[in-house]
This record gives sequence, C-alpha cells and structure tokens, in this order.
Amino acid sequence: PPCTDFDMAYFHSYSHLGIHEEMIKDRVRTETYRAAILQHQSSIEGKVVVDVGCGTGILSIFCAHAGAKRVYAVDASDIAVQANEVVKANNLSDTVIVLHGRVEDVEIDEEVDVIISEWMGYMLLYESMLGSVITARDRWLKPGGLILPSNATLYMAPVTHPDRYGESIDFWRNVYGIDMSAMLQLAKQCAFEEPCVETITGENVLTWPHVVKHVDCYTITIQELESVTTRYKFKSMMRAPLHGFAFWFDVEFSGPAIYPTNSDAPSSLSGSSSNSPIDGSQRKKRANPNEALVLSTAPEDPPTHWQQTLVYFYDPIEMEQDQLIEGSVTLSQSKENSRFMNIHLEYASGGRSFVKESVMR
Amino acid sequence: PPCTDFDMAYFHSYSHLGIHEEMIKDRVRTETYRAAILQHQSSIEGKVVVDVGCGTGILSIFCAHAGAKRVYAVDASDIAVQANEVVKANNLSDTVIVLHGRVEDVEIDEEVDVIISEWMGYMLLYESMLGSVITARDRWLKPGGLILPSNATLYMAPVTHPDRYGESIDFWRNVYGIDMSAMLQLAKQCAFEEPCVETITGENVLTWPHVVKHVDCYTITIQELESVTTRYKFKSMMRAPLHGFAFWFDVEFSGPAIYPTNSDAPSSLSGSSSNSPIDGSQRKKRANPNEALVLSTAPEDPPTHWQQTLVYFYDPIEMEQDQLIEGSVTLSQSKENSRFMNIHLEYASGGRSFVKESVMR
Repeated sequence: PPCTDFDMAYFHSYSHLGIHEEMIKDRVRTETYRAAILQHQSSIEGKVVVDVGCGTGILSIFCAHAGAKRVYAVDASDIAVQANEVVKANNLSDTVIVLHGRVEDVEIDEEVDVIISEWMGYMLLYESMLGSVITARDRWLKPGGLILPSNATLYMAPVTHPDRYGESIDFWRNVYGIDMSAMLQLAKQCAFEEPCVETITGENVLTWPHVVKHVDCYTITIQELESVTTRYKFKSMMRAPLHGFAFWFDVEFSGPAIYPTNSDAPSSLSGSSSNSPIDGSQRKKRANPNEALVLSTAPEDPPTHWQQTLVYFYDPIEMEQDQLIEGSVTLSQSKENSRFMNIHLEYASGGRSFVKESVMR
Repeated sequence: PPCTDFDMAYFHSYSHLGIHEEMIKDRVRTETYRAAILQHQSSIEGKVVVDVGCGTGILSIFCAHAGAKRVYAVDASDIAVQANEVVKANNLSDTVIVLHGRVEDVEIDEEVDVIISEWMGYMLLYESMLGSVITARDRWLKPGGLILPSNATLYMAPVTHPDRYGESIDFWRNVYGIDMSAMLQLAKQCAFEEPCVETITGENVLTWPHVVKHVDCYTITIQELESVTTRYKFKSMMRAPLHGFAFWFDVEFSGPAIYPTNSDAPSSLSGSSSNSPIDGSQRKKRANPNEALVLSTAPEDPPTHWQQTLVYFYDPIEMEQDQLIEGSVTLSQSKENSRFMNIHLEYASGGRSFVKESVMR
C-alpha cells in the first residue's frame, strides 16, 4: 500500500523520544517481552529475527543478547537512525541490521525464523500496526517460524465509575454554589464523545468480560482487521449505575502451535515449545498453554501505559442485579485516516436501546 | 486588530469544557478571585463591571452576587453561549449581559466602573490575553475605575532538578542493562527544547527570584508587551547542579492607586481601598499593599493549574556556593502566531556563555 500523509504523521510521532521513554519505562511491557525472548531462547539462538517497528531497538538487542544470528530491526520512523547508533555503540553492528523504512518497502534477502513486534495500540487495534506484522510474516517468515507475541485477545466489559462521572458531569450541578447545570449537555459531549484512555480497577467492572476479537498472529489477515464486529450480552452481577464499557487486551507468547495434541515438551524456561514446529495452516492448539507468558492490560492486573480504553455513555443506566445489557460493537478503520478507529456501539437494556458512534484519533 | 486564524483556533480551544473545568477546579485561583470580589464589594455594588474572557461566566456571577448593577461578560469563544444559559438558569439575565465576541468588536454603550479578568497564561504572558484587558480598559473604564487584578509580576530563578534530569536524560545511560547513551543528544532535545509546564518546590530553587516584568494593569500598554527584556544576575546559595530557570508569577488585587502617600483606609474586608480613586496616570503607590490579596503561583506556595514554567539547559552547570550566573532573557510574541511566545535566554557562568532559544506553543 502507498505511504499516506497520515502514515508519515504517524511515523513522525515516533521520532520524538518521549513516546519511547514511556514505553520502555512500562516495566510490565518491557520485562514481559524480555522474559518471552529468554523463554524462547532456543528458537532464537543462531536464528534470523525481524523486529517490526523496532523503535529504539531494545527488543532487537534483547534478541541479539539471546544469541540471534542476525536481527533485522525495521522502523519507518526516524528513531531508526538513533537505534542504529545504539546498535553501533553496543558493538552489535554485525548482528543487528537496522532498516529505516516500512516493512512493505525494505528488502530482506533471506527467510526469517522469528518475528518479534510490539505492535499493540490502545484497544489493541488502534494505530493499525498489526498490519505491518502480517506483511512481514507473509514476506519473510519461514514455515514453522515463531511469532512473538503469538496471539492477542481484545475484551470488553460493562463498568461503573461514579467518581469519574461525578467529577466530569455532576460537578457542574454546583460550582462554588452556582448551578451550572446548563453545562451538562456540553459537559457530557466534551467528556465522553471520544474514547478515554484511563486506568480503572477490577472494582469498576460489573461482570466477566466478553471476547471482542481473538487474533492468531500466524493466520490473521489484513482484511479481517478492517472491520471487527461482535455481539455481546452481559448480566450485571450487582446493582449499580452502568457508565459505559471498558476495553482491554492481553497477548500471549506461546510457541508455534502443535498439531494435533498438546506438546509434552519439558517445562524448562527455554525452548520447550520449539520442537516440531509445523505449518501455520495446520495449527489447532497452542503449545504449552499453561506456561505461555501473558502480557495483560486488564483492570485487575498491574497498570501499563496502555491503561484501559473507556467508551462512556452520555447518561448512565441504573442496572439491577442480574439485569441484562446486550448489543453489538463494530471497530473499523476510519476512512478519514486508517490509523484512526471508528467505534460503533449499540446497546439495549431495560427496554431502551441506544447507539453511540465515536472515533479514536 | 483583525481576528486571525490563530485567534480563531485560540478561541476554539476554549469552547471545550475540559479547560474550564480545570481552571474552575483550581481552588487557589477561583477562591482568590471570589475573595477579591468580596474584598472590593463596595467598589462593585451598584456598579457596572466588565468580565474580559468570561468563560463559563463564574466571575461575572460572583460579581452579580456581590451586588453589581450590570456585568458585561465578554468572550469570543463559543463557551459564551453556555455562559448565557447559566446566567438565564440563575435568573441573572437582568444583571449579566453575555457578549459573544472579542472586546475589540463588541459594543458597550456606557462607561464601566470595574474590569475583572482572569487573563494570566503560563509564564504570565503566554496566550497574550492581557492585550484584551488593555483594550477593554482603554475603551470603557471610567477614570478612577477598578481593575482586578491590579498588577502582576513575573519572576525567574535558577533551579536544580536532578530527579527530572535523571529520569529524562540519564535514564538512557542504562536501559535494562543496555547503554543507550547514543540517545542522549536526542533525549536532551526532545525533553528540553521547549519550555516545560510542571510543578517544582521551593527546594528546587537555588536563590531568590529576579523580577522579569512588573505589570501595572492601569498603565501597561500593548506595545510594552510585544517584547520584554531583562538582565539578571544570581548568586547560588548552595553547591548544586543548575538545570535551568523556573518562571512563575503572582497577581495582586489592590484597589486603585493612591497619590501621593499610602492610604490609611480602615482594614475591613470590603471596600477599604475604594476611597478617593484617581486617574491612572497619577498613580504612584498602591493602596493598602499590606492587605492586598495575592494569587501566587510560586514554587513555595500551594500548586495551581499554572504550575511553574521551566526552561531547562541541555547540560547542567555545576554551581559552587556563591557562584554567579548572569545574562538576559527576552520574551516576545512569536511572529508566526502572536499567541505563541519566543524565549531568548542568554546565560554565562564560570567563564562560559550560552544562548538558548525556545518557543512556547
């Protein structure tokens, strides 16, 4: 695909170091990736790796330290220039080859054994960077090669958040003794028209989450990602005002899948899942599901820089215990800018139904 | 002056309610304004007031509650439409007249007794809204009228902030065991090219502040604000790395100035300084300097939404106790966008001299 002005702006945003600092300082993120590289060290040692969207090059260097024969560190942002300096300063120029360009455009003249990428955006799919992983996979990955992370799951759940609603909305009912309720309509629009990236806790969540989308990185296609629709039905576990839905994701660092039964490989830290990798089309079951590392951004887990993404209603729904709420959600790439995401949310409860459109910019 | 696209963008930014919520929730700001209105109640009761940049109208309503005969609430942003709704809902339409437009453009067919405005931007002068207060003053204020606040002072002082420098810069020296010093140059540029709005404490400040600019709201002219230059000389009170300069301001809510000697008006809460107001050109000394309310954004005072503005050096200077640092600073409206501010900083210490240019956008 051609490189649009929106892509250029997107790549440029990653040339500012602050964004990388924030990601690297997210220890849950960075340490889980490092642990995953060590866990899969036997699949990396002596092998060829591509790091899709390498940023500062930290994951590429982790792979080099884990014994990779060669790592192609690809990034379209100017941060690639800096990554190359870091590689040189660490005497890894023989191993890590920084390619400054899009995975669609750069050339790698060999097949690769491993793809690693930290591609996840807010709400998993925001930024649409998974498409670059798919492109890299289809261009270069050997049959039976390893993709880290191997799969990802986007969840949603109904949430109650009276404090948040109160401070943004109810606040206007009494402002230093003045009734500013005339602001309520605007306050709701300003606060809740767009999705909010913020941290909630497990206590805000009214019931078990629903899987919006499961992504198998070995088989997912770019077409599948253009629009994702799911129908959901929740039964509130308590009586509470329902303020909207939270979205979050996790990713798993499993080895290539094993067919047809689960692997009985030893459960040592490294390499347990690299035996008998097979062609992706035959995958039926993940290897070692019980020891796969998981990077979770769920409300009940330690916070990450992804936080959670909240889509608030303009008006809360007073839920009784066991009351149902059901509907559908469609996530699609914005026509305006494919890096943006449209969120079409339908919900019905207690005999009333609603539609909310929002755009994550 | 004509209304530029930059002005339109500026006004539009104030149509989003979040910015007003943040300002109103700044209790130091809002409660000091309310206290100042009560303190000057005798100058407001039965009088005509203009609120320049009224936003949600909160200060206008405070003035109406304090007994103003009429309050013209002027704002060029669409928030004025909401302010008008709030006024109606509070049954104040007979008193508070919302004018949706620039002070340069709206018409008020009478002289006014009082101008109130919360015009201060970061670093006092950012946003250039003081110009609108000057315009309102020159168009409508009666001789001897009251301006709240009456005067403002911008300060600067050298600061040490090793934690901040460490987490943005030194961080790259050891990133999960990897030496990323190759990032240092870019890190310095990304972190410190532009002024930073952040909260420091009195402990970060190396010596007493220097007055960059004192503004008497009765006499200041628009021309004076186009460019402000000061020379400074500091002697560090301790041995410490000097990381840059902090800027902050305070504003005072004095009554009109008294000529030629200080007022001996009684020190009651209200109206003590409204006696014998005289023409601004003759002002020599503020009335009641000892009981004037002050809204301070200094590091040693309770934090406000203005925080402090930091201009960091790319490299710290190791200061000995009593070591001098001297130079000059020039603040000027950006030619690119008069709402932006150029900061030209010259500094010399220990035989070396430096120049740093930055833009507050």
